[in-house]
Amino acid sequence: MTTPLAVQWMGNTDGCLRLIDQTLLPGELSYRDCRDVPTVWEAIKQLRVRGAPAIGVAAAYGVVLGVQGAAGTNGASCRDAAIRAADELRTSRPTAVNLFWALDRMAARAEQLARDGADAATFLRGLLSEAHAIRDEDREMCAAIGRNGAALLDKSSGVLTHCNAGALATSDHGTALSVIFHAHAEGKKIRAFVDETRPLLQGSRLTAWEMMQRGVPATLLCDNMAGAVMSQGRVNAVIVGADRIAANGDTANKIGTYSVAILAKEHGIPFYVAAPSSTFDFSLDSGDGIPIEYRDPREVTHGFGRETAPTGIEVFNPAFDVTPARYITAFVTERGVIRPPFANSLRAALT
Amino acid sequence: MTTPLAVQWMGNTDGCLRLIDQTLLPGELSYRDCRDVPTVWEAIKQLRVRGAPAIGVAAAYGVVLGVQGAAGTNGASCRDAAIRAADELRTSRPTAVNLFWALDRMAARAEQLARDGADAATFLRGLLSEAHAIRDEDREMCAAIGRNGAALLDKSSGVLTHCNAGALATSDHGTALSVIFHAHAEGKKIRAFVDETRPLLQGSRLTAWEMMQRGVPATLLCDNMAGAVMSQGRVNAVIVGADRIAANGDTANKIGTYSVAILAKEHGIPFYVAAPSSTFDFSLDSGDGIPIEYRDPREVTHGFGRETAPTGIEVFNPAFDVTPARYITAFVTERGVIRPPFANSLRAALT
Repeated sequence: MTTPLAVQWMGNTDGCLRLIDQTLLPGELSYRDCRDVPTVWEAIKQLRVRGAPAIGVAAAYGVVLGVQGAAGTNGASCRDAAIRAADELRTSRPTAVNLFWALDRMAARAEQLARDGADAATFLRGLLSEAHAIRDEDREMCAAIGRNGAALLDKSSGVLTHCNAGALATSDHGTALSVIFHAHAEGKKIRAFVDETRPLLQGSRLTAWEMMQRGVPATLLCDNMAGAVMSQGRVNAVIVGADRIAANGDTANKIGTYSVAILAKEHGIPFYVAAPSSTFDFSLDSGDGIPIEYRDPREVTHGFGRETAPTGIEVFNPAFDVTPARYITAFVTERGVIRPPFANSLRAALT
Repeated sequence: MTTPLAVQWMGNTDGCLRLIDQTLLPGELSYRDCRDVPTVWEAIKQLRVRGAPAIGVAAAYGVVLGVQGAAGTNGASCRDAAIRAADELRTSRPTAVNLFWALDRMAARAEQLARDGADAATFLRGLLSEAHAIRDEDREMCAAIGRNGAALLDKSSGVLTHCNAGALATSDHGTALSVIFHAHAEGKKIRAFVDETRPLLQGSRLTAWEMMQRGVPATLLCDNMAGAVMSQGRVNAVIVGADRIAANGDTANKIGTYSVAILAKEHGIPFYVAAPSSTFDFSLDSGDGIPIEYRDPREVTHGFGRETAPTGIEVFNPAFDVTPARYITAFVTERGVIRPPFANSLRAALT
């Protein structure tokens, strides 16, 4: 049993990008077909598609859509259209590095195709093939993360997770949730503790939904209940995804991850970060260099269709925080479990 | 400038209890007149009136309402009606000790009046006078807490609070918020950081509203953002209220308080608990004995008028958690600031 795919390409080079509109889950499983770059940009910006790996894959297909409009022209025009599309999509969200990684890769392929003198049809086939490769590699990496991480969980484990690092956040399987799904499939007795993840409730809307889809026992809690459930001895491990990881292991992930990491430390619970190698940004020495997106105050004050705070109140609404490497027990990647000291181990394993 | 009173008695012995229906704030400032015990019980249960001291005061007036129905009878009937009312109101919520403290006090007064051979009119006057005394003493204690606590805050301070321990949670002034209001009134440059406090948003709905009513600069954040705002160095102190404090200083307060206390410790930020002496329960050696109320899962899954989680998901929804005394820098009471070791200092100051 699997959950529906968050990101799919429908058809051939004249096809379109089909996204689950995740803002409507869990009430409604509805798809949105994107046929141009602005529609993809809007879907990323509005979190219809979210999760660092899924954003990367969606953006890669967005570049293909940008070049469809240049069909019938020559390779140089196709390259220009690809670069324009990539540049536009780069402005959608600042924190997840997979977005930039995927767009850089698509741009490099476009340059190569132009250098090779590809005609428009060849160009489009080449770009679509590259986007498919990004998707397929992501799926493979996620499956490997699941296999590698499951070994970290005891036969009977309570596992707390924050936000959604599941199939919906990737091409398939997920990162953090891939570990949980894999352990569950191996027959381990897993109970997931799912932080609801304010303000946009990716935990209650998406992670809880994925758990029910796959039959994994799960308990939903408000973010501020994580300490209480840990103090009851019910959580044996914490595992989360990541949006960008600096060379020293400092990790940007959904706001609230940092608090969970501190709570885990205080309770002596291991804190794992699951991410494919595309999430590591070795151009940054530490988390200080990771740009943090601040989002609309209305996500906090009007999150549920009505105003739940006094009009005019100032709001602090960062979408991410940075968990310093010292709180992280290990990274779970497609290349294995990486342990401290991260300053050495990450580069050794991943570069 | 003050906020409207959460709990008022309207009229004389034939009067009624007027509550702000806090479930409708901040959108609507609406009052609910209670003329019998079941209406008071429902208002406490449904959190129309909430906050440990305010619950105690409302319940005290509830006993008066219970005896109004016995008017025209004799003192013994009045006593029986008072005891019945107190017993019924005791079942409304389990955690806040002020409820039991106020009801015990009203019951003791009823016994005394019966022993004194009071007629029905005298009985009712006596009970109303006792309830007024509970209210007035609470107001005085809250004002004293504000004076005592303000000295703990630097001239320019960011102060984080959780839930609502404000005027709305008491007869007036508040406990934790009384400290903030007092420091602000003294001319200190205070910025309040207000945790929204899921699931029922007492922070965003009530505390943020009180801050705006009184002109105190305030920033609203989701509960999971407290760690991030602390890591930015913007929080110099945390101050919260309490629902019950054991003899050793272990403190039950709104769910999430425990997490905030751990975050404060990790950032080297002092963590203060403000409460009147009526909140201390010296019959309990430690927090292990404090009963914790678990509330309807729908508060988490349907908190905002629509379902935001998959149907059937298991939910963990404790209304309170217990913060061990070791995380608490000091208690702010009407009798002064009480510091560790609490096993000695609390009894010495308060008994």
